[in-house]
Amino acid sequence: MISFPPGEYGTLKVPEATIIRLSLYSRFLQQLIEKGVTMVMSAEIASGTGVNAAQVRKDLAYFGEFGLRGVGYYVKELYRNVMTILGLNREWNVVVIGAGNLGQALSLYRGFSSRGFKIAAVFDTDDSKIGQKLHDLEILPISKLLDFADKNPFEVGVITVPAKFAQKVADLLVLSKVKAILNFAPVVIAVPDEIDVRNVDLTVNLELLTFKMGLKNPQHTP
Amino acid sequence: MISFPPGEYGTLKVPEATIIRLSLYSRFLQQLIEKGVTMVMSAEIASGTGVNAAQVRKDLAYFGEFGLRGVGYYVKELYRNVMTILGLNREWNVVVIGAGNLGQALSLYRGFSSRGFKIAAVFDTDDSKIGQKLHDLEILPISKLLDFADKNPFEVGVITVPAKFAQKVADLLVLSKVKAILNFAPVVIAVPDEIDVRNVDLTVNLELLTFKMGLKNPQHTP
Repeated sequence: MISFPPGEYGTLKVPEATIIRLSLYSRFLQQLIEKGVTMVMSAEIASGTGVNAAQVRKDLAYFGEFGLRGVGYYVKELYRNVMTILGLNREWNVVVIGAGNLGQALSLYRGFSSRGFKIAAVFDTDDSKIGQKLHDLEILPISKLLDFADKNPFEVGVITVPAKFAQKVADLLVLSKVKAILNFAPVVIAVPDEIDVRNVDLTVNLELLTFKMGLKNPQHTP
Repeated sequence: MISFPPGEYGTLKVPEATIIRLSLYSRFLQQLIEKGVTMVMSAEIASGTGVNAAQVRKDLAYFGEFGLRGVGYYVKELYRNVMTILGLNREWNVVVIGAGNLGQALSLYRGFSSRGFKIAAVFDTDDSKIGQKLHDLEILPISKLLDFADKNPFEVGVITVPAKFAQKVADLLVLSKVKAILNFAPVVIAVPDEIDVRNVDLTVNLELLTFKMGLKNPQHTP
C-alpha cells in the first residue's frame, strides 16, 4: 500500500497495484485521444487494458467521481486527471548513474520521454566510457555529479551500478538533493526517510512466470 | 491475482504481491543459510525484508503450515518450500530475442543465473551484431531460432525488440514451443492462452515514484 500525506486525497491508502493499473489506463486513454474518441465507458477501459470493469471503477473511485453514471467518462478529462494523480502533469529530470548495458538501455529508452521523464545526464566512473555519447547525452564522470546537481537540479536518480557501489552512489544522490531513487542494484540501500526508493529486481518478473509454469508442469518438480 | 489450476495447492488464488514477497523472503532466507542460521521467526523475516510480520505469516499460509508456533521456521526447509512454490527448484532455459542495449543487459545480468535462469541464446536480425559474443554467448540470427529450439528446448522467451517487431517475434516463440514470454516491448502481444505473458514496462517503476512525489510536492502541479 502506498499511503500519502494529508492533502488533496485525504489520508487514503492506495494499493500499489491500483497505481500500476492507473498507468495502464492512462496509456489506453492516450490512444483513445489519438483516435479522436471523446467518451469512454469503464467496460471499454476494462477490455482495452485487460482489467475487469468493477476494478476500473474501484481504482478511479479512490480519487473522486470522474464519470457520469450510464454515460461514462470524458476521455480527455479522465486522462488529465489520471496523469495528475500519477504526478505526470509535469516534466521530471532523471539522472542515471552507471553507464553499463542497463544504464545505457535506460538512458536511451524512448518510453521515458513520452511520459515526461527527461534523462538529464548519465554518469560513470569508467574512464573508457566518460566522454562517449549516448545519442545526445554525454557520459560524465561521477566526480562531476554534485556540481551538475547544483546547476541542473534533478528529482530522480537511477542506480545501475554493481551492488558493491550502490550505497556510495546513493549517498552521492542524497547530497545531490534527489527526491526519489530507482535502484536496479540487487542490494538494499539506506537513505533518509523523505527520499522514496524503489528497488527493481528484473529477476522477479521471471519468477512470476515460473511460479505459474511450475504449477502447470509439476512433472518437472523433483 | 494469479489463479492456478487444481493441483497441489487446490484452486487458491494468490495475489501477485504475495509471489513478489515470496521472492524477497527466499533471498533473505538464502542469506541466513549462508550465515549458518538454522531457525527464524516471522518477525525476523519481516524486519529483514521490510514487510510486516502478519503479512509474512499470511503469505506463507497460502501454501500450508510451514512453521512451528512460538518456535518459528526451519530456515533450510522454508527456503526449499518457498523456492519450490516459486518454481525455482529447477533450471529454466531462457532465450533473449533482441540484442540491443536492453537485450544485452538482460543476457549478461548475473542475477538470473543465481536463481536458476540460464540464458541459452540471444538472437537478433542485425547482421552487424550476429556472431558477436556476449561473454560466452554468441548472438545468433533470428532465422536460426526454430532450428535452435528443436535441438535446445527452452521454456522462457524474453522479447527486447522494438514494438513493431514484437508480435512477429512472439509468433516465432510460439512456434518454438515456448511456455512463457517476458515482453519488454511497449505493445500488447497476442499468443495462445496456454502461454503466460508478462509485460514489463520500465516506465511504470518511475511512475510509482512520481505518484508519491507529486503528492508531496503539490507546488509543482500547475
